Amino acid sequence: MTLTEASFWTGMAATAAFAVTAVAAIKNRGVDLFGVLVLGAITAVGGGTIRDVILQQPIFWVQNLSYIWVALGASAIAFFGRSLVTEGQTYAILLYLDGFGAAFFAIHAVDTVWKLGFGLPAAPVILGMITAIGGGLMRDVLAGRPTLLMSRELYAVPLLFACSLFALILTLALEYQAAGAAGCVALSFLLRAAAIHWNLRMPRWLLSK
Amino acid sequence: MTLTEASFWTGMAATAAFAVTAVAAIKNRGVDLFGVLVLGAITAVGGGTIRDVILQQPIFWVQNLSYIWVALGASAIAFFGRSLVTEGQTYAILLYLDGFGAAFFAIHAVDTVWKLGFGLPAAPVILGMITAIGGGLMRDVLAGRPTLLMSRELYAVPLLFACSLFALILTLALEYQAAGAAGCVALSFLLRAAAIHWNLRMPRWLLSK
Amino acid sequence: MTLTEASFWTGMAATAAFAVTAVAAIKNRGVDLFGVLVLGAITAVGGGTIRDVILQQPIFWVQNLSYIWVALGASAIAFFGRSLVTEGQTYAILLYLDGFGAAFFAIHAVDTVWKLGFGLPAAPVILGMITAIGGGLMRDVLAGRPTLLMSRELYAVPLLFACSLFALILTLALEYQAAGAAGCVALSFLLRAAAIHWNLRMPRWLLSK
Repeated sequence: MTLTEASFWTGMAATAAFAVTAVAAIKNRGVDLFGVLVLGAITAVGGGTIRDVILQQPIFWVQNLSYIWVALGASAIAFFGRSLVTEGQTYAILLYLDGFGAAFFAIHAVDTVWKLGFGLPAAPVILGMITAIGGGLMRDVLAGRPTLLMSRELYAVPLLFACSLFALILTLALEYQAAGAAGCVALSFLLRAAAIHWNLRMPRWLLSK
Repeated sequence: MTLTEASFWTGMAATAAFAVTAVAAIKNRGVDLFGVLVLGAITAVGGGTIRDVILQQPIFWVQNLSYIWVALGASAIAFFGRSLVTEGQTYAILLYLDGFGAAFFAIHAVDTVWKLGFGLPAAPVILGMITAIGGGLMRDVLAGRPTLLMSRELYAVPLLFACSLFALILTLALEYQAAGAAGCVALSFLLRAAAIHWNLRMPRWLLSK
Repeated sequence: MTLTEASFWTGMAATAAFAVTAVAAIKNRGVDLFGVLVLGAITAVGGGTIRDVILQQPIFWVQNLSYIWVALGASAIAFFGRSLVTEGQTYAILLYLDGFGAAFFAIHAVDTVWKLGFGLPAAPVILGMITAIGGGLMRDVLAGRPTLLMSRELYAVPLLFACSLFALILTLALEYQAAGAAGCVALSFLLRAAAIHWNLRMPRWLLSK
């Protein structure tokens, strides 16, 4: 398996994880199967769509419909197995998979945008963040949930930290691009996993109140 | 009247129907005339705008400002005649017109996107759905209303069924494109009309609860 | 200082004013420093981003990252000085600065879009309004606040009046473009300042209730 293939299959797994976590997140909101498919797919591909619109590049899921089929299929499976995916133990595992998916999407986007030389160094980081959290923000707005910006959950900060570090590596030591990418995905995931495991939250003095 | 002209005038009528229904839908939300114009216009042209942005084609209402003038004019008329358009009997007629407009916009978009060969077969269906319901979703989010994804109303499902059937016709029997388009608009409208008339809703087992 | 330089620095000041006002507006919504940076930056550059996406032109802040740095810097300063910026007297000053920023952004966008010959005469006015209020709408939706479309506040109407007048000047008397731009910024600002000072609101008969 080449690196490109590995990246493709990781992206597919991350897409499925995003969709399934979305379905688990929107239970009890009066959403029907149609809404589940729409919100699952938006969560999975919405952030990357905004990224490609801002980049003015072809939309990734139009180029390769596998992302849509996987997002819709995973959402449908999650809908019919919703008593399973919203169950405590399974949902906890989903949170970790979602954290890994977000880390992968974010760092992969920073890498792609950096290679395009697009608004270095800030735009790759911003577009990496949009790729990872944009779909979830759209889902929450459309489902009438408070967005993650209104919670103290440590979801986005590990991503921002890892994306910024990766941008620094690409600026200072481009020869470590591959190792840096892997390391930053791992870092982001580990920080998020620590936040899930120990229920870490933003300290109160960093709240705007 | 040529087919293109008939299509243009149908689009204008559908634009007006979308705007007027939007104004009726947002009464009692503390919106003023400015908000009515904005939300009426967004409902009427918002979905098509997202479609054109994803297609990376010129925005349809920039190419032909008639859509904007009709949307704004219909919204203003609906605002000043709001005691009429929100009245039971008139509002019911509006719902049927809106259902026809959504069917027309959706199938017309599937047809247009299919001719561009853009992400066949899934992207035309997705963009058809975005064209028909995207503006209404934006309106509800901006007006602080629950979106249609959070209701059991049968609004989007008839559209999805008709768009998918039309994509199947275009795949298997492209020579029936014109008849298929007309038939799928009629099918979507009739399903929606049945849902309005008999107050049909999504069955409970298709709800995510 | 050339006119282009003056325009650039005014844009920077307006960007900072938008970001700081945004931070003051979202206090008490449980937003943390990350959310403050995101929402401050979206408020400052979000409207212009939608404008550039619809124009299918390069995104302004990707071309010149100063807008992002100023927006993030101003948001961070406002976060740490939030007891100051939300204090009555300072907040009142911020409202005036924000009103000036919105007037400048709107008229500047009308001017730019007009020069592109893009959908004259309606599209420049629409894109001017999107530039000025689009970021604030996104902020309110993401922060779960009622949008300005649901308030009787006279925020957008002065902008619409000035943008429309400027479009009229550009149509009828293009030779007065520079003076017209300055006059329309001043007009929009003065109307907004009057609305803030005397707490003017939309008259009740212009409400959709």
